[in-house]
Amino acid sequence: MLTRLAELFGLSGEGQTSGGRERAAARVTEACHRLLSERGEVSGARLASEILTSYENLDAAGRQSFFDLLLKEFSPDPVEVGQAGDAYRDDPSVETLARLQRAVESPRQELFRRLNMAPGGTRGLVRLQADLMKAGGHVPITTDLGHLLTSWFNPGFLTLKRIDWHTSATILEKLIQYEAVHQIKGWEDLRRRLEADRRCYAFFHPALPDEPIIFVEVALTRGMSDKVQPLLDLSSSVVPPESADCAVFYSITNCQPGLRGVPFGSFLLKQVVEDLEREFHRIRRFATLSPVPGFRSWLSENAAEPAGAVKFTNIADIVAKLDEPGWHENERLAAKLREGLVPLCAYYLLRAKRDKEPVDSVARFHLRNGARLERINWLGDTSKAGLERSAGIMVNYVYEVGNLERNHERYIWESRVAAASGIETLARQAITPLTKTR
Amino acid sequence: MLTRLAELFGLSGEGQTSGGRERAAARVTEACHRLLSERGEVSGARLASEILTSYENLDAAGRQSFFDLLLKEFSPDPVEVGQAGDAYRDDPSVETLARLQRAVESPRQELFRRLNMAPGGTRGLVRLQADLMKAGGHVPITTDLGHLLTSWFNPGFLTLKRIDWHTSATILEKLIQYEAVHQIKGWEDLRRRLEADRRCYAFFHPALPDEPIIFVEVALTRGMSDKVQPLLDLSSSVVPPESADCAVFYSITNCQPGLRGVPFGSFLLKQVVEDLEREFHRIRRFATLSPVPGFRSWLSENAAEPAGAVKFTNIADIVAKLDEPGWHENERLAAKLREGLVPLCAYYLLRAKRDKEPVDSVARFHLRNGARLERINWLGDTSKAGLERSAGIMVNYVYEVGNLERNHERYIWESRVAAASGIETLARQAITPLTKTR
Amino acid sequence: MLTRLAELFGLSGEGQTSGGRERAAARVTEACHRLLSERGEVSGARLASEILTSYENLDAAGRQSFFDLLLKEFSPDPVEVGQAGDAYRDDPSVETLARLQRAVESPRQELFRRLNMAPGGTRGLVRLQADLMKAGGHVPITTDLGHLLTSWFNPGFLTLKRIDWHTSATILEKLIQYEAVHQIKGWEDLRRRLEADRRCYAFFHPALPDEPIIFVEVALTRGMSDKVQPLLDLSSSVVPPESADCAVFYSITNCQPGLRGVPFGSFLLKQVVEDLEREFHRIRRFATLSPVPGFRSWLSENAAEPAGAVKFTNIADIVAKLDEPGWHENERLAAKLREGLVPLCAYYLLRAKRDKEPVDSVARFHLRNGARLERINWLGDTSKAGLERSAGIMVNYVYEVGNLERNHERYIWESRVAAASGIETLARQAITPLTKTR
Amino acid sequence: MLTRLAELFGLSGEGQTSGGRERAAARVTEACHRLLSERGEVSGARLASEILTSYENLDAAGRQSFFDLLLKEFSPDPVEVGQAGDAYRDDPSVETLARLQRAVESPRQELFRRLNMAPGGTRGLVRLQADLMKAGGHVPITTDLGHLLTSWFNPGFLTLKRIDWHTSATILEKLIQYEAVHQIKGWEDLRRRLEADRRCYAFFHPALPDEPIIFVEVALTRGMSDKVQPLLDLSSSVVPPESADCAVFYSITNCQPGLRGVPFGSFLLKQVVEDLEREFHRIRRFATLSPVPGFRSWLSENAAEPAGAVKFTNIADIVAKLDEPGWHENERLAAKLREGLVPLCAYYLLRAKRDKEPVDSVARFHLRNGARLERINWLGDTSKAGLERSAGIMVNYVYEVGNLERNHERYIWESRVAAASGIETLARQAITPLTKTR
Repeated sequence: MLTRLAELFGLSGEGQTSGGRERAAARVTEACHRLLSERGEVSGARLASEILTSYENLDAAGRQSFFDLLLKEFSPDPVEVGQAGDAYRDDPSVETLARLQRAVESPRQELFRRLNMAPGGTRGLVRLQADLMKAGGHVPITTDLGHLLTSWFNPGFLTLKRIDWHTSATILEKLIQYEAVHQIKGWEDLRRRLEADRRCYAFFHPALPDEPIIFVEVALTRGMSDKVQPLLDLSSSVVPPESADCAVFYSITNCQPGLRGVPFGSFLLKQVVEDLEREFHRIRRFATLSPVPGFRSWLSENAAEPAGAVKFTNIADIVAKLDEPGWHENERLAAKLREGLVPLCAYYLLRAKRDKEPVDSVARFHLRNGARLERINWLGDTSKAGLERSAGIMVNYVYEVGNLERNHERYIWESRVAAASGIETLARQAITPLTKTR
Repeated sequence: MLTRLAELFGLSGEGQTSGGRERAAARVTEACHRLLSERGEVSGARLASEILTSYENLDAAGRQSFFDLLLKEFSPDPVEVGQAGDAYRDDPSVETLARLQRAVESPRQELFRRLNMAPGGTRGLVRLQADLMKAGGHVPITTDLGHLLTSWFNPGFLTLKRIDWHTSATILEKLIQYEAVHQIKGWEDLRRRLEADRRCYAFFHPALPDEPIIFVEVALTRGMSDKVQPLLDLSSSVVPPESADCAVFYSITNCQPGLRGVPFGSFLLKQVVEDLEREFHRIRRFATLSPVPGFRSWLSENAAEPAGAVKFTNIADIVAKLDEPGWHENERLAAKLREGLVPLCAYYLLRAKRDKEPVDSVARFHLRNGARLERINWLGDTSKAGLERSAGIMVNYVYEVGNLERNHERYIWESRVAAASGIETLARQAITPLTKTR
Repeated sequence: MLTRLAELFGLSGEGQTSGGRERAAARVTEACHRLLSERGEVSGARLASEILTSYENLDAAGRQSFFDLLLKEFSPDPVEVGQAGDAYRDDPSVETLARLQRAVESPRQELFRRLNMAPGGTRGLVRLQADLMKAGGHVPITTDLGHLLTSWFNPGFLTLKRIDWHTSATILEKLIQYEAVHQIKGWEDLRRRLEADRRCYAFFHPALPDEPIIFVEVALTRGMSDKVQPLLDLSSSVVPPESADCAVFYSITNCQPGLRGVPFGSFLLKQVVEDLEREFHRIRRFATLSPVPGFRSWLSENAAEPAGAVKFTNIADIVAKLDEPGWHENERLAAKLREGLVPLCAYYLLRAKRDKEPVDSVARFHLRNGARLERINWLGDTSKAGLERSAGIMVNYVYEVGNLERNHERYIWESRVAAASGIETLARQAITPLTKTR
Repeated sequence: MLTRLAELFGLSGEGQTSGGRERAAARVTEACHRLLSERGEVSGARLASEILTSYENLDAAGRQSFFDLLLKEFSPDPVEVGQAGDAYRDDPSVETLARLQRAVESPRQELFRRLNMAPGGTRGLVRLQADLMKAGGHVPITTDLGHLLTSWFNPGFLTLKRIDWHTSATILEKLIQYEAVHQIKGWEDLRRRLEADRRCYAFFHPALPDEPIIFVEVALTRGMSDKVQPLLDLSSSVVPPESADCAVFYSITNCQPGLRGVPFGSFLLKQVVEDLEREFHRIRRFATLSPVPGFRSWLSENAAEPAGAVKFTNIADIVAKLDEPGWHENERLAAKLREGLVPLCAYYLLRAKRDKEPVDSVARFHLRNGARLERINWLGDTSKAGLERSAGIMVNYVYEVGNLERNHERYIWESRVAAASGIETLARQAITPLTKTR
């Protein structure tokens, strides 16, 4: 099969010369034209399949050439766009609008729709988009394909599935591979995360049956967790899940780089909350245990500001301490830093904004969903990554079904962050010195 | 739930006054605006669900009002379209094109995407489209929704399933209900069509698990069937399927009026051919047994033309005989009519064209797929419907995998109809008198 | 395949002479010997399959001959039984007991176990048992096979499944075919019995995936039904199931005649009660609506007894009225009969016994399960069958999970029938005249 | 639940005194009597479940007491056995035989049948049998339960399933745990054994859905493998399976100790051969790559015999060399040993017998199945275990569907071992000196 394709498209996997590479990309492009032509109607699936396979056989430079050709040869025709625009201006009717709509739609859109007819086509297009995003540039292609993928991966087409030890190894090993927040260190680690007092849920799309799209890991606990290490500890004792009163979402991972920007996260969390409510009547609280990924670099950027705490002259003074290895195991130093950092973190989350939204990306995600900032946990994550990005701090955001809508609207319309009152108080401790933020 | 919705939207299922009806439609429209607004992000699924339910509660006139509002309030903004058009004309760049693309896309598209998030949303939208098509008018809405549905019902998302007696009653009763070509007269009739020497295949979409999208009925036979009544006869003996050498597609039915215009038929036939080839190595021929639905009315339209056969003065003479009840049981008359009608039918299929394609819709479908017109079967369908639409004639189109592409291309580019040589000869018998067709 | 078997076993489906028939039976028997011999170890599945197929090809008389041979040639060896008995008597040890156990086990048991290795073997054996039971006689074979089937159809191997409109037609048509209590009159009737306020549950065995073993039909109602016709009425309105407070078991059917005597019924009812309790929190009462199948014939047998009611001289007087066609539509007569029959029915159910258990088979089944006789419903079933077997009366038995065990034990050890107090009172009205019953 | 059971049965998991232990065993036994009594009919499933759980809570000594009680209290009544034996001797009829059959059947059988009604009952009984076998003694109980398990695990009830990377982790980790022949060293090792040119098949029983009963590992190869290490090598290259001409069964493992003695192995191999024949038309040879587990100890037992090879005085001479560590890496020594050992191994497999069957257990299994001894592979397994049990030798047995029956019958009736002619020749080289074997 591969051999046959190689003949068809003159490809060879290795040793591609620059010229050979360009010819290969040109051949794929030609095949795309054929697919868009009438012939595509009869032999669409086969042709689409061949195009995707031969695309995969291109090396990075070959793909770049192919992207260039996609941009050049499958964009709307400027002349027709211009004329349709004129026609609309002269007589803005249903018909002239329809003509203009047709004129501005890239032929790429139809090309991608036809490529989707190949067996495994959807997966191929998601990978193509990942390649485009990684390569950067070619914005119009990414936009076209993203538009299509957003439509195809509409939440109405996604299925929530629980992942546990009965799930196939094919899927489980993908969790190990994809988990981005708290690395899974092999099958034993994974197993602990799927046991009785843990839950893992993922969204699946029917066209990618073996590929989780996004997944969330949940711990069922007594009381709202303030530290992540005990949750990840392989030797932690298993809580009987029916005695839990809290569900802690401690990790959420997007699996498909090609679907970046398609919003699934908030749907996933809401459906999981509903599922858990149905299953466990005693669970009253749904909260995250989240990093504050932008905190540490924000501190550095504001190093010159006074620290707002009696024990430090300014933030730089604090940052310097954070650079000392093992500082969190030095009890005295840690206690001193706590006094300085916790109010600063409260300030950071409530006041440090960009375009009216918090600077912190995780805060933006949960607050936009309508969650409430509930608690700041000192030394909540003492892993290397946790210390480096969040100065060891973790945060709980609480999801209360009844308040999500109101919180969301205030967040959107009034730029108000829903937060527990104590956090407001903490932020004020830091407020005098820090008066300005970008 | 319904009660609650009724309060929310001020609806009541019955006794709607004209004013009440308009208020109801207006309330659904308002909810659509809310769904498109920020709030839709948090409560999308619930809101979408409420909108679809309250839409279903509108009566025909209420729906009409709702369509009017959809047209008026969710179309692109002409001012913005105009400005974006000007901006593009002044500077045709990637950015101005992107702006123009955004400007011309109807807000309806995003509205429909969000409605799809409701449980059962896809089904609701397919029904909405069916309502729109039935009502007529509102072309821009139908176009927008059709655009979306074509993308969502891409063949890459459809699954071919065999339907047999192990299939659920939910699905089986839909075959009884939908079958359009040769009516299924209850469960016993259906059962015979699913037995050992019969096959039924349907496409399903993951979002509509209980709804066949399109299905085809196949008989496995020895020799290519020339008459449909023996196939439909409940008491016909069952051919051991492994002894069959021919697969006859005797009925193909689109089930979803809301998906009219989305092309599935050719994909279905091709996949079924592949499946049957894999399962039955002895089957060498794949053919349809198809009606000629436009033949009878074409005869009437051309009544004044000479009949091209010695025994009739002109077509009107033939048509008059066809109006006599029971003509096909009168052997002498039938023989005489055969001499006149078979050549005319050959002529009709090969020469009677509109926009370069055959006038006959079934011929257009199969020839466009790349099939070959193989045989004209006199008295192939003597049912009332068969006599009325096709003068009792049925036709075999043959699908030869190796020739589909070539036939399709000649059909498209050269307007050539692939036909067995005998049919060409027949058409020539009728050719002298009939010189013109629309 | 059949042809080959026919050769192998010298069978032909039709026109068997008496001699040919016996030869055929002898050949099947020989094959059984081969299966039990060493060869069976290697080619067991194939040989078993051939035996079962050729058995099915025997006509009734051929099967009878086969049964005779099974009895003659596959019974324990009396000499070995005698010697093993002696050895045990001389020295009753573990070893001599084991020898005796081996000696008394029929070779048939192992034969049946090996026949089960054929694809579809279990089904074949269940059918064989049905044939044996229908033919009568051959008790030792029936006992051996029954012993095995009881072990294989242990409740631990059965799966409870809900049957609804999503179930396959293969299974649904078996409900239509098997329903024994209240005949199902086609697909529309079946459909009504599976709708929202109805439930149907069946036990399945993994080796017979398409064969319900036993099924029960349930109506979810407000109040405990006293009449069956409204439940069966196709035009009855559907009760929202979540508003029901009672589940009425109105029909229970054993599907496999070959499994008669294997007790499933009580397991089925208990599991269904548990399932319904989980699903519907408002349902407080689980009751049957059952016929009194032996009542009418019991009346005839006791015709000479006084009727215990002022309006009739004796039971014969009542029975005579019951023979008048349409008596139940004659209001006056019906009212008069009610006065006589309801107390007699109470008496029949509470006092008419055989071997310490009620004469009535349905009463025996439910009372043995631990249910309570709750209510006697006059004109509860006015169908022809209902009038003929139960004089139109139906009875409610109530299943109260908390009391089943106690009721069952009293029933077994003290021959006490659990009944509502009113029924005891009614029985006493009839008690004076009727002093004796078999 | 556990707490409640502990109360019921007076159990506590730890610190059981000898007296407490016996009381606990006595309480489980009492519950067994209740289950067998009438009450068992109504509350069987619950009671059975409680018995199995409380049995699991007994420690080893408690279980021993329970087994003693099972033996004492649930065996046939000797008085009734004696009387039934007398009755049969006086009048050997169908009735007296039936009475004797009832008398000799242990009440344990019915007890076990009722225990099976508990959810997970079958699994519990398989575990109980494993405990009994491990403990030893209590033969009548093991026999009774084994009789039942053999009937329940009849091949007709087992399902063959392919195990691959799509299988659930629950099942996959059991392969890692159970594999007995060539240890699986973690998930990566397992993964290689399930890849494209490998196959793994297992039998499952419907009552133990997550428990493989027995499984076999197969390599699809070009040519018949003579060494196992290359097959197990993680870095071995993957052969395109459609190019393979041989299927090598290199490991077969019984998973359930409680089912020891229930014969599945030959059914499994035959079904897998059929499956592979269907899937891969080019595979012409089905062979095992098997150890010779009894060879090394047989050598030691026959150390005094002459070696039949010029280079060694006697077998003791050879055995002494085999005790030198690393001998197989010493080319010269290995070559010398080969000359002596290969003929001895041929002799061992063909001539060393016990009760007319080969001494070697693996040889017995495959030859009884009708396979042919095809080739002796020098240094076929150089793992520690392979050197220790088989002197590094591995053997190919070939399964030829057409010859299995004949080989099996000759093996059974004539004690003939089917072997390639070269092996006979080899054996003769060793035959002079070795004239006797037990």
